[in-house]
Amino acid sequence: MNNYVKIFDTTLRDGEQSPGATMTSVEKLEVARNLARLGVDIIEAGFPAASSDDLEAVRRIADEVGNPPEGEEQAKVPVICGLARAIKGDIDKAWEAVKGAQNPRIHTFLATSEIHMQHKLSMTREQVVDKVREMVAYARSLCADVEFSPEDAGRSSPEFLYEVLGVAIEAGATTLNIPDTVGYTLPEEFGALIAGIIENTPGMCDAITVSVHTHDDLGMATANAMAGVRAGARQAEVTINGIGERAGNTSLEEVVMVLKTRHPVYGLETGIDTTQLARISKLVSNYTGISVQPNKAIVGANAFAHEAGIHQDGMLKNQMTYEIMRPEDVGVSQTNLVLGKHSGRHALRVRLTDMGHALDDTELDQAFVRFKELADRKKVITDLDLEALIADEFYQPLSVFSLDGLQVSCGTIGMPTAAVRLKGPDGKIHIEVAIGTGPVDAAYKAINSIISTPNTLLEFSVHAVTEGIDALGEVTVRVEGENGHQTMDAQKELPFSRIYGGHGADTDIIVASAKAYINALNKLIISKTEMQTAQNDYGVMLVG
Amino acid sequence: MNNYVKIFDTTLRDGEQSPGATMTSVEKLEVARNLARLGVDIIEAGFPAASSDDLEAVRRIADEVGNPPEGEEQAKVPVICGLARAIKGDIDKAWEAVKGAQNPRIHTFLATSEIHMQHKLSMTREQVVDKVREMVAYARSLCADVEFSPEDAGRSSPEFLYEVLGVAIEAGATTLNIPDTVGYTLPEEFGALIAGIIENTPGMCDAITVSVHTHDDLGMATANAMAGVRAGARQAEVTINGIGERAGNTSLEEVVMVLKTRHPVYGLETGIDTTQLARISKLVSNYTGISVQPNKAIVGANAFAHEAGIHQDGMLKNQMTYEIMRPEDVGVSQTNLVLGKHSGRHALRVRLTDMGHALDDTELDQAFVRFKELADRKKVITDLDLEALIADEFYQPLSVFSLDGLQVSCGTIGMPTAAVRLKGPDGKIHIEVAIGTGPVDAAYKAINSIISTPNTLLEFSVHAVTEGIDALGEVTVRVEGENGHQTMDAQKELPFSRIYGGHGADTDIIVASAKAYINALNKLIISKTEMQTAQNDYGVMLVG
Repeated sequence: MNNYVKIFDTTLRDGEQSPGATMTSVEKLEVARNLARLGVDIIEAGFPAASSDDLEAVRRIADEVGNPPEGEEQAKVPVICGLARAIKGDIDKAWEAVKGAQNPRIHTFLATSEIHMQHKLSMTREQVVDKVREMVAYARSLCADVEFSPEDAGRSSPEFLYEVLGVAIEAGATTLNIPDTVGYTLPEEFGALIAGIIENTPGMCDAITVSVHTHDDLGMATANAMAGVRAGARQAEVTINGIGERAGNTSLEEVVMVLKTRHPVYGLETGIDTTQLARISKLVSNYTGISVQPNKAIVGANAFAHEAGIHQDGMLKNQMTYEIMRPEDVGVSQTNLVLGKHSGRHALRVRLTDMGHALDDTELDQAFVRFKELADRKKVITDLDLEALIADEFYQPLSVFSLDGLQVSCGTIGMPTAAVRLKGPDGKIHIEVAIGTGPVDAAYKAINSIISTPNTLLEFSVHAVTEGIDALGEVTVRVEGENGHQTMDAQKELPFSRIYGGHGADTDIIVASAKAYINALNKLIISKTEMQTAQNDYGVMLVG
Repeated sequence: MNNYVKIFDTTLRDGEQSPGATMTSVEKLEVARNLARLGVDIIEAGFPAASSDDLEAVRRIADEVGNPPEGEEQAKVPVICGLARAIKGDIDKAWEAVKGAQNPRIHTFLATSEIHMQHKLSMTREQVVDKVREMVAYARSLCADVEFSPEDAGRSSPEFLYEVLGVAIEAGATTLNIPDTVGYTLPEEFGALIAGIIENTPGMCDAITVSVHTHDDLGMATANAMAGVRAGARQAEVTINGIGERAGNTSLEEVVMVLKTRHPVYGLETGIDTTQLARISKLVSNYTGISVQPNKAIVGANAFAHEAGIHQDGMLKNQMTYEIMRPEDVGVSQTNLVLGKHSGRHALRVRLTDMGHALDDTELDQAFVRFKELADRKKVITDLDLEALIADEFYQPLSVFSLDGLQVSCGTIGMPTAAVRLKGPDGKIHIEVAIGTGPVDAAYKAINSIISTPNTLLEFSVHAVTEGIDALGEVTVRVEGENGHQTMDAQKELPFSRIYGGHGADTDIIVASAKAYINALNKLIISKTEMQTAQNDYGVMLVG
């Protein structure tokens, strides 16, 4: 058996489709680029049948990330995968979206547990078997790389699974993914299930990859995935930070670091550059607005913080006494190079390049302006500050509205007021003033009276990027549009409203709050126009 | 073998001692009360040898939570446990702290892995065995209930463990706790370790409880604990929200819900009232300032949020299709009773009582005033708002300084200013004004020029309690004092500075920010005076 475990990242599908984690197509593309750079083998880029903009986002990733850059035709590129229900129309759309990639894959699925077949599909076992045969064969007629998942496999009858999976192999599937859809199994059960599938599925051979896809509802996603890998699975479906519906999917970083840290036990390899884990964790957290708790394994702020609070003069006698991984293995810089007021353009470029941000000259100029502004207000500027600035300045959708000025007054007197000046897509300046329950409420009311797109603020959070009272504040908001903006969940087949995250950074948290809200509303407006796929209300060019 | 798994909660020891999670003695007592109400069997209340205030906090918990209320002498009370290194002085202090409880326990430990014995202890195997015999016997001479842990058992030689544990039994230990101190083991390894210990330890019998204590560095804490339980362990050491050093300890809520959800597999019971899990999770998160990520199993905001964003008219065909636990099983209210402007004092009392807050008349009056203030500013008031108000108003240490007035002006012009008026412990009013990099910086500078106690702001975060732009903002800060305030880590034997969390809630996030900072500084001042255990600088009465 080969000793390479393929990492199949579904941050952009199972992660992104969880309500609240919606990303714009620009953000998705940026995440896909970073996943490719991380060394992921397969990127599940979305569910193209959900909506035309979902299809478009997958197509862009297939075209741009799924092909080697010009002049580097030999470079390794990830497989780009699109999800499809076992329906012809879905499979057609998935193929349309991924076919531009050098290595396209279609991933189709059908539920095999009694509860799902009965209550969701209203299909008999025979009907399920026939549908799998038909749809896998159809997908294979379009694409050489087909993955099939028996949904809710964790609660399915093993014997029925062997039958269905045998049919899928016969019809041309080359990857069989076994999902514990509801996060119900125990590691010993899931390991036995995978072993049984490898042992008993008709047609099983070295050309077939068995894959694991687990969920964390009982806190055992990683242990389940590892039990499956130990039983012979050679693909793990994971997400960055373990994001996903409910308690989320298996964390990429956990699976990869278990394989690395306990290499003598498993003897297995992945293609992941683990030193990028901390950075991509932060990127996904910023884009989705889904925070990572301090005690999250591998990527939590405290995961390596043994030393926090321990006095400088107290040295650990041996680092390995309490540390099984080194912070540098996952890209947590122990000694952040600190920049300050007198650091020049060159120092900034060097630092950003080290951090993986290859900006062109114009972008560097732009970053340098923001850097100097910040350096005037804050003594030392760390990597975390730079990441926040970069996230705030770049990787944002084209602005429809931008903040031109803000003046706020608030306090215990109880009449928080905000005056907001926005520049519209037509270049015109709009000014409004409002009173609210607090300064953020006042600013948001003023913004709403300029940008009149109905929305609900679902979440608002701020955190300081670094220590110290002069720190940069990063604000994340999540906003739901009220008209349209629907997409569809592949598994539950239910439409749901898209939720947009917005992000802003400033030393003034009210300014950062205004930026984050405007950012989210811009995404909402752009998404509306993307869905109309025609001339839009605001006359803006779409991103790209 | 009996079918009851004892839940040993170490939120107040292994959780609290992790840097950044410091709680005041009042907060610790409140957490202990809630743990008792939750049905925890053993509360590890602290490490009494760390400092005199640690000892005092454990003693109060032993006296107040470790004994039945007057008139209810038959009520079940938890065992109160104190941690001690295998040192006579530590054991004496642990005994002094817990002896007032109806069921006291001393928990002592010594490392048994080669790496720890060599680099940390500089002891031979023989010396370790002798020390265990001597110190367990000494603890047993004071207390009938003694627990022993071979630290770093996960990396210790099994044969050596059998020997050490046999000696501990011989010397009088009745609970043998097996810690995977560094979060290194795999479930199959840990299960085998526990099975081996039960099989091979001399003197093992039904009167001895084997316990598991696992860490989440590789994301497998829960799976490891469950593997140990399946192998015969009948005590699990856990923390609320899985807080703890690095990636944290095993989550109480995960272990308990695995046993409940997969009851047919395990056939095991706990004494936990699972409907209190969501509430105690929120309480611990508020007190420690350690957030819970949305995709955290069981207690994350999204753990049961299948429905988020799904349209009202889209009904799941069968709830169990995608749900293996019901939200009401863990106390997540599906239909939060909503209060508003016109709700009366009685409605508030009924709601708070339902939520587990039994306030007396004076406290209810106080809560009602805050409630009415909020109702004037916010249309609907949910359970989450009430929890925030209660946390802000009660369960706080006695104020040394309190916010009397705040006026802030900020925006893109770049001269954020704050005027702050505080009432001091002597009742005197202090006013200061400051300019900062943002409104929070300005307010904090003004506060610092009144409360001149050197400190570093380590963390600052805000989140909206509910949806909507008029939401209540909850601010959490973490502050490190610069002079003294040290405590000691039991395992690493290194002193570290205590870090104080502060908490504030208001619809104006700058006001909430000021409250949170003042709250943290008050704790810092009180702790300083607690440590001096004598007359203090500010002439305030200590809490209690």
